[in-house]
Amino acid sequence: MTGTARSVEVCFTPALYQYFRNDDAIVVVVDILRATSAIITAFMHGVKRVIPVSTLEEARAYKAEGYLVAAERDGIVRDFADFGNSPANFKREAIGGRDIIYSTTNGTHTIMTARDSYRVLIGGYLNIGALKEYIAEEHRDVIILCAGWKNKFNLEDTLFAGAMSESLLETGKYTTSCDSANASLDLWKLAKSDLMGYIEKAAQRHRLKKNNLDDVLEYCHTFNLTRCIPVLKDNYLADLATLK
Amino acid sequence: MTGTARSVEVCFTPALYQYFRNDDAIVVVVDILRATSAIITAFMHGVKRVIPVSTLEEARAYKAEGYLVAAERDGIVRDFADFGNSPANFKREAIGGRDIIYSTTNGTHTIMTARDSYRVLIGGYLNIGALKEYIAEEHRDVIILCAGWKNKFNLEDTLFAGAMSESLLETGKYTTSCDSANASLDLWKLAKSDLMGYIEKAAQRHRLKKNNLDDVLEYCHTFNLTRCIPVLKDNYLADLATLK
Repeated sequence: MTGTARSVEVCFTPALYQYFRNDDAIVVVVDILRATSAIITAFMHGVKRVIPVSTLEEARAYKAEGYLVAAERDGIVRDFADFGNSPANFKREAIGGRDIIYSTTNGTHTIMTARDSYRVLIGGYLNIGALKEYIAEEHRDVIILCAGWKNKFNLEDTLFAGAMSESLLETGKYTTSCDSANASLDLWKLAKSDLMGYIEKAAQRHRLKKNNLDDVLEYCHTFNLTRCIPVLKDNYLADLATLK
Repeated sequence: MTGTARSVEVCFTPALYQYFRNDDAIVVVVDILRATSAIITAFMHGVKRVIPVSTLEEARAYKAEGYLVAAERDGIVRDFADFGNSPANFKREAIGGRDIIYSTTNGTHTIMTARDSYRVLIGGYLNIGALKEYIAEEHRDVIILCAGWKNKFNLEDTLFAGAMSESLLETGKYTTSCDSANASLDLWKLAKSDLMGYIEKAAQRHRLKKNNLDDVLEYCHTFNLTRCIPVLKDNYLADLATLK
């Protein structure tokens, strides 16, 4: 790596990833409410591997083989699953040292979309400081890939993209000429002094409320609870620290 | 039409339109720098029809038949064409009463993407007041469809989407629960007191500068120069007033 500044770009939904694709880049996948926040929590509590699957059929097949399975659609836990998508489920006593099969509305698909990049990392407020340090050290181009909602833009992932971009630009090693990154930065600056107040605008916040799943809203917006960085390795997620 | 509030949604790029598609809606297509600003200008100066074409080959074939042709790619006028994409070209003496064939990087494709909706209107700051009045009278759901840049989000179209959304919400006849619309509104509120200053952030502003095509930057951000609303009719654009 040279001393040249690297680029930060923000891709608002997996449907646009083909226009950003850069297989030399680090891709940070974000689905704040709640998939990536939940996955980070699982590693923080000692899970061995998280295996993302795209379909409920795959998740069901793994369940039949005795795996722990987290599966929901549109915020509703599927009847065959052990857990839904809430970080609150992933307690150490339930998951420590085990593998989890993970299938969600947006998160799984987004993770697999970026599989050909140099490295796919799982990001959230929970591990933003560790992410920043690792990325700044690697010093490669970065694409922050938002899961969005059913291929549409969403606010909560965009705010995180702004926070992450801001922290990378502050290192002086990164630059951006990406309109999506600049929009994310400005929305983040607008929101950060009252993040929970701003999140009231997000449609997903109201979907979760309707399904009584909004108990983890503040948790998912908590900074730096862990140094764990989940990373995609072949077809599963592992703790980056175990790969070094 | 009932008295119920209608929805305003913002679609950041044509690549996402499939997730917003609602064939009962009015779609406002926007490509501020510069396609839709140029098309509005053409109607303001008396053009009869604007015929959008997708490929340079089609544009060239029309030229051979004696049509006036506007064609550019990446901001560069094609050698066979009469004009590029600048509103400054569309003077009454050149185009009054005539048809123009129009092919641009993003605009043409975006217009045709929405062709199955109730009505496709061409929007810009130049006709924003007339648009607002017409739309509020029709009282249907509205999708503001940004041309973006090569299927990516861009800032200049998003700011217009925010301005248009704000003016529709102010009528009290519209509501939104669309995260893209809410983001556009907030970016617009941030930018509107110094629109030309904010536009310095936009990548397209710098592409135009590099090609010496930024002479129309302020013009394209001028409010209410005309009451003309170009509308898609079959495969061409006409003045809405001539359809009534």
